[in-house]
Amino acid sequence: MEFKVKLLEIRSGGKQIIVIDDEYASLLGIHSSDRVEVAYKKQNIIAIANVATDFPKKNLGIYEEVQDKLKIQEGETVTVRPAERPESLGYIRNKINGQRLTAPEIKSIILDVVERHLSDVELASFVTSLHIHGTSMDEVEALTKAMVETGQTIDFGKGAILDKHSIGGVPGDKTTILVVPIVAAAGFTIPKTSSRAITSPAGTADRVEVLCPVDLTCEEMRSIVKKTNACLAWGGALELAPADDLLIQVEYPLSIDPLLLPSILSKKKAIGADYIVVDIPTGRGTKIKTIGEAQTLAREFIELGKRLDMHIQCGVTFGEQPIGYAIGPALEAREALLALMGKGPIDLVNKAASLAGLLFEMMGAKDGIKEANNILKSGKAEKKLREIIAAQGGDPNVKPEDIEIGKQVAEICSDEAGRVQWINNRNIAQIARIAGAPKTKSAGVLLNKKLGDKVATGDVLYRIYSGSTQKLESAVRIAEKLNPYGVTGKFGEKMLVDRIPSKKIYYEKPFILER
Amino acid sequence: MEFKVKLLEIRSGGKQIIVIDDEYASLLGIHSSDRVEVAYKKQNIIAIANVATDFPKKNLGIYEEVQDKLKIQEGETVTVRPAERPESLGYIRNKINGQRLTAPEIKSIILDVVERHLSDVELASFVTSLHIHGTSMDEVEALTKAMVETGQTIDFGKGAILDKHSIGGVPGDKTTILVVPIVAAAGFTIPKTSSRAITSPAGTADRVEVLCPVDLTCEEMRSIVKKTNACLAWGGALELAPADDLLIQVEYPLSIDPLLLPSILSKKKAIGADYIVVDIPTGRGTKIKTIGEAQTLAREFIELGKRLDMHIQCGVTFGEQPIGYAIGPALEAREALLALMGKGPIDLVNKAASLAGLLFEMMGAKDGIKEANNILKSGKAEKKLREIIAAQGGDPNVKPEDIEIGKQVAEICSDEAGRVQWINNRNIAQIARIAGAPKTKSAGVLLNKKLGDKVATGDVLYRIYSGSTQKLESAVRIAEKLNPYGVTGKFGEKMLVDRIPSKKIYYEKPFILER
Repeated sequence: MEFKVKLLEIRSGGKQIIVIDDEYASLLGIHSSDRVEVAYKKQNIIAIANVATDFPKKNLGIYEEVQDKLKIQEGETVTVRPAERPESLGYIRNKINGQRLTAPEIKSIILDVVERHLSDVELASFVTSLHIHGTSMDEVEALTKAMVETGQTIDFGKGAILDKHSIGGVPGDKTTILVVPIVAAAGFTIPKTSSRAITSPAGTADRVEVLCPVDLTCEEMRSIVKKTNACLAWGGALELAPADDLLIQVEYPLSIDPLLLPSILSKKKAIGADYIVVDIPTGRGTKIKTIGEAQTLAREFIELGKRLDMHIQCGVTFGEQPIGYAIGPALEAREALLALMGKGPIDLVNKAASLAGLLFEMMGAKDGIKEANNILKSGKAEKKLREIIAAQGGDPNVKPEDIEIGKQVAEICSDEAGRVQWINNRNIAQIARIAGAPKTKSAGVLLNKKLGDKVATGDVLYRIYSGSTQKLESAVRIAEKLNPYGVTGKFGEKMLVDRIPSKKIYYEKPFILER
Repeated sequence: MEFKVKLLEIRSGGKQIIVIDDEYASLLGIHSSDRVEVAYKKQNIIAIANVATDFPKKNLGIYEEVQDKLKIQEGETVTVRPAERPESLGYIRNKINGQRLTAPEIKSIILDVVERHLSDVELASFVTSLHIHGTSMDEVEALTKAMVETGQTIDFGKGAILDKHSIGGVPGDKTTILVVPIVAAAGFTIPKTSSRAITSPAGTADRVEVLCPVDLTCEEMRSIVKKTNACLAWGGALELAPADDLLIQVEYPLSIDPLLLPSILSKKKAIGADYIVVDIPTGRGTKIKTIGEAQTLAREFIELGKRLDMHIQCGVTFGEQPIGYAIGPALEAREALLALMGKGPIDLVNKAASLAGLLFEMMGAKDGIKEANNILKSGKAEKKLREIIAAQGGDPNVKPEDIEIGKQVAEICSDEAGRVQWINNRNIAQIARIAGAPKTKSAGVLLNKKLGDKVATGDVLYRIYSGSTQKLESAVRIAEKLNPYGVTGKFGEKMLVDRIPSKKIYYEKPFILER
């Protein structure tokens, strides 16, 4: 049936959506969320129908994604008909009903995800089924491979490619900004791609962006890696495993994360990584609560790596407080730079040297950590970072004091004296976000005390930085409410950790979706 | 943050959607599908955000549902902020993780469904979880009650309210058009609401609409029932258990139906039904394949009825071929009218008398079926139907030959001689839909032969009626491909029922979502 095109000035964020009035939808047998085939000249695309009750008859409203694809003008004529349900929907239904999927079935689903043939309702049902029924290692392998095959891949044309990844969950984790130059300074190739923050106050891409541009093309990445052995790029625009980005859009509102392994390793495989160290921050306030859980996850990473021809080692790291003192893109970039210049907090330096060290040992070194520490102390890593900054278009001579930090500052002081017994990661992250991070790069939190530190009444525990008075006030209010520090005179003096009242109160556990 | 309103000429079909540009969305910490609070004058509503990449900055696009609610004009200013995640989302998450939900938790979810506080992604995940984990009878009860409490209810101010329901799945099932006047003619009150077809060629509301208007208000229903003891109304606009209608919108694309019982009985409870007979068509080609399954479902209906203070009996009926000969709204209305006039097919008449008879026996009759047959034969049921038609605004003197049937007709003849061994319900339904039913009321299929009938080579098996040559041609093509009749000389001559080739072919099982 023919329709007149009505251009809608709306972008859906990737989905191909058309709007059709209910009368003609019904004539065509189209329900809301059904797929339709839209034909224009020699082109044929599949779009998702929004059935609208008051839309002008025989008009087809098209979102900008569809306009881009069809290159069509207002008032032109298109032919619309119901599309066949994609085969992959049958496989999704099998997964809903608890069946294991074969590799070709998974490939068919992932292909339809990338081609936007599946609606949000179908994607949501698919990830919910994966979460409930779980995935076998065969399925995980097939998911990962399908994600790689349906996206861009980059061949750096060099020898072994090294990589480092953290599954996330600890605020202030700027370790990557140290590990990459340490490894590259040792002569290895490490083309690192990172994500921006989803639920946290800063992702590595947000941090690095304070020092230099991170939005690189594949071509730019290749040339920078050729020059410096490394890069610190944002992975988001590279179309590496794009299915993953689309699935995250439905995982996030549901607070479920059934595709953790395929999500991470597909991005690694797409850049041809051969040797990877995976950091699993563990403990209270992180994603992974116990060493046992961390070991199970590590085994899965290693097994999946084998199936994908990648050598993987995992490091379980202490995650019960932020790494270093700084939380928020600019504060963290400054701290990382200082650390490379020999003035870094002990935990950050140790974590970076440990993870770089694991990579060195995978490549044959006897004492990797020592080697990493030597490179750090020699200033070679700092020099390498400055090379990378220059190659990516930043100022290689940047000084820590050049980095702009939020002008609005509030000090949060202790009401009690003693030692810091705990720091609540999620609360600290929340305060930094309310202060404006990651969007406002200069916003965040700078700790003044860490676990085990002595505190006198009135001592500053941490400072909140913000770009706006209003946000600073909100952050201070929430800080006072959350009180993320536990300070006691003697260990054991405060034994009550939590209280569950008889009246059932719904407790919203904050969800960490960081990769 | 303040935004300028941009009215979008789009209706979403019930959802409250706003469109916001990605930059300001990010500043506010809003992701696609997040809930936002929109404040205008003294009003405050929750809407779902669509984050658009190219939308004008600081403009808020609003769908017509939101315009209706806020009564706002283009260019006016609204305040937008992220809304708290509704409490019900936590309960949905608990269900995803396999927990049983309490009645207050379920009430909170259903309330948020009706108030459109939940996105499609969340609804899809919820129904998927219900489908996978199943529901306890306590949950089913709570779901049903919550659906009733969040919608309209009608009190007819009369004594016992009787009702009849079929879970659907057999084409041509116009039994309700006979049962309602039989029961009403016996002096009982039966205010019947029915649905339109979702996946079938005709729903009862589609059939009755051939005879008289069915889109009644609650007030009209009450006055018609007062006059005639009965009505045959479309339930869709009455806002009885509206949560069910909203959940069906996500169940349908997923082809799952975890809310069958609450869906049906909430609508019954909302009109105050006391005595209900539930028809469970059973056998090959229906929703319920075996008598065992039918009995399990019947037990659940009866148990749920008890919990809701409704007396329920179930009838398991033979469903392996269409009821009567006619499939499609007009053809079926004509056949039903003929049956009330004493010229009906034996299976239709027997089914109607049996179900009406079960109701009569629930009300104390000794031989209900005999009583129902007597009313039918006496012409009292026909008279009652004509009363109802008149009360609803139709022509009470309508003759069967007045009913318009599709002018384009094709005859499908048998290639073989013998007896009809099977008729494939789903194929017949599909042919009728392709011919134009239910949208084109006059379209459909009229069988000429039924199970066990003798057939000579060249005999007409069935006729396809359509309003358009093109649709008729499509229907004939599909009819030839599907070949829904099995004709053999001797029973047992064709033993091969199905064939599963070694090459895996994806087989799409048609999904019946009829209530």
